[in-house]
Amino acid sequence: VLPPTIAVLGLGLIGGSLARDLAAAGARVLGHDADDATLAAAREAGVVAEALDDELEGLEAAEVAVLAVPVAAAPALLARAAPRLAGARLVTDVGSTKRAIVAAAAETGLADRFVGGHPLAGDHRSGWSATRTGLFRGMPVYLCPSPASSPAAVARAVELWCAVGAVPETVDAESHDRRVAWTSHLPQAASSALARALAAAGVPRAGLGPGGRDVTRLAAGSAAMWCGIALENAAELDRALAALGAEVDRLRAALRAGDRDAVHAWFADGRRWTEPPGA
Amino acid sequence: VLPPTIAVLGLGLIGGSLARDLAAAGARVLGHDADDATLAAAREAGVVAEALDDELEGLEAAEVAVLAVPVAAAPALLARAAPRLAGARLVTDVGSTKRAIVAAAAETGLADRFVGGHPLAGDHRSGWSATRTGLFRGMPVYLCPSPASSPAAVARAVELWCAVGAVPETVDAESHDRRVAWTSHLPQAASSALARALAAAGVPRAGLGPGGRDVTRLAAGSAAMWCGIALENAAELDRALAALGAEVDRLRAALRAGDRDAVHAWFADGRRWTEPPGA
Repeated sequence: VLPPTIAVLGLGLIGGSLARDLAAAGARVLGHDADDATLAAAREAGVVAEALDDELEGLEAAEVAVLAVPVAAAPALLARAAPRLAGARLVTDVGSTKRAIVAAAAETGLADRFVGGHPLAGDHRSGWSATRTGLFRGMPVYLCPSPASSPAAVARAVELWCAVGAVPETVDAESHDRRVAWTSHLPQAASSALARALAAAGVPRAGLGPGGRDVTRLAAGSAAMWCGIALENAAELDRALAALGAEVDRLRAALRAGDRDAVHAWFADGRRWTEPPGA
Repeated sequence: VLPPTIAVLGLGLIGGSLARDLAAAGARVLGHDADDATLAAAREAGVVAEALDDELEGLEAAEVAVLAVPVAAAPALLARAAPRLAGARLVTDVGSTKRAIVAAAAETGLADRFVGGHPLAGDHRSGWSATRTGLFRGMPVYLCPSPASSPAAVARAVELWCAVGAVPETVDAESHDRRVAWTSHLPQAASSALARALAAAGVPRAGLGPGGRDVTRLAAGSAAMWCGIALENAAELDRALAALGAEVDRLRAALRAGDRDAVHAWFADGRRWTEPPGA
């Protein structure tokens, strides 16, 4: 069901892991990465069958092209790749925000064949050394077609992600960005904010127990990547951050008042959310 | 090296796991729990050799007694147990705050034999069903003697925790409470605050990726336990919460200003804290 030739541009955690799964499933993977050592490692691992240089020469052979670079770099890469994608039947990406790239695709003349994608499979790791097979199995992947996307391109995007075990959900770009501000960007910001507060207080990570290490794990994520995401989704993320700050303030007020019922309810309501529905 | 008879009062995650390790190391464990089913399960598992009823009859046989109940319940339990502990050589606890229990011990006439304890081994789970052997291996345990604690009692507390693989560190109760406000109570509050914000926004936990699930895992902790801890350490925790809130505000300000350098530095500084020293 997979098209025989798929280009993956960017071989970090997401792109590299996708390339691993696609190669294992029998696709011929054309690979590119701005980092020469990464590209060489992906070839040596037998994942990338053909390395594309910075000119992306040879990209014309790809029936599907996946952009897997940080969101701030994606529109420029798309513009660079577009002239070589006349024969492609699906162009997609994996970025954590979707409005900008979907708009950029429309400007390149790829609108009918572009379907934005966003697998929720990342964690605190990054780079080729973090890549692994099976990363997407059972994980949600958002697909964001624009009104101009062809049904055939959407079907191909679904096939691509189903082939690596992900669970596609289709949503428009605006709804996507609003939703991930809460499901992904806010947890990242909460983890980073906690790490920053602990750093400023002179508390080393080794002083934390297993629970505290869980909460701060995401803070190890790539600063460049998260800076791009946060700025691109600033308005939505600001609303989510305000809600987080309000919850912190609510606990402080209850503690200052010595209000045992309010403090108990504060923790109990948070706990209730963690329980599976109907439990 | 372990004394032959050790009482564990409270058989939740910490007390129950400690009882498991002590029994496995050859100690005779006297067990008590306010929940009859828990106590019965601990006996059936062969962990508790003798069950103590609510009167704690038979506690006199214990050379070491460990209080492992929520901090809000510990002083009353200590007062109830004290008349039966005339022959004990070490009385200790596992609570997450230490000032109140160390002060309470002084009032019971146990001051010379009391050494407060706090293993950093808890996570989001609780209750007997969460107990397991090896929970303390390699984990920090704070020991908080008072000025009245005898050197022999302190030595016994160190032995107790070394016997289950924990790494003891001695610190006074005030310093302990100040420190855990940051290392333990703030991560808990951050996780719960995030869970509350997501709950209020109508976002289910199933919509999060693996990273977001890490950050919100602690929020599943016992509300009763955390309510007690937060109130008892309210002043120290308030300072830590203020620092967390300030970091959230700092990101919001940088995003509103569209200040790319400030946003990048915000994430990069948090990331740097997660790196091991010298890395």
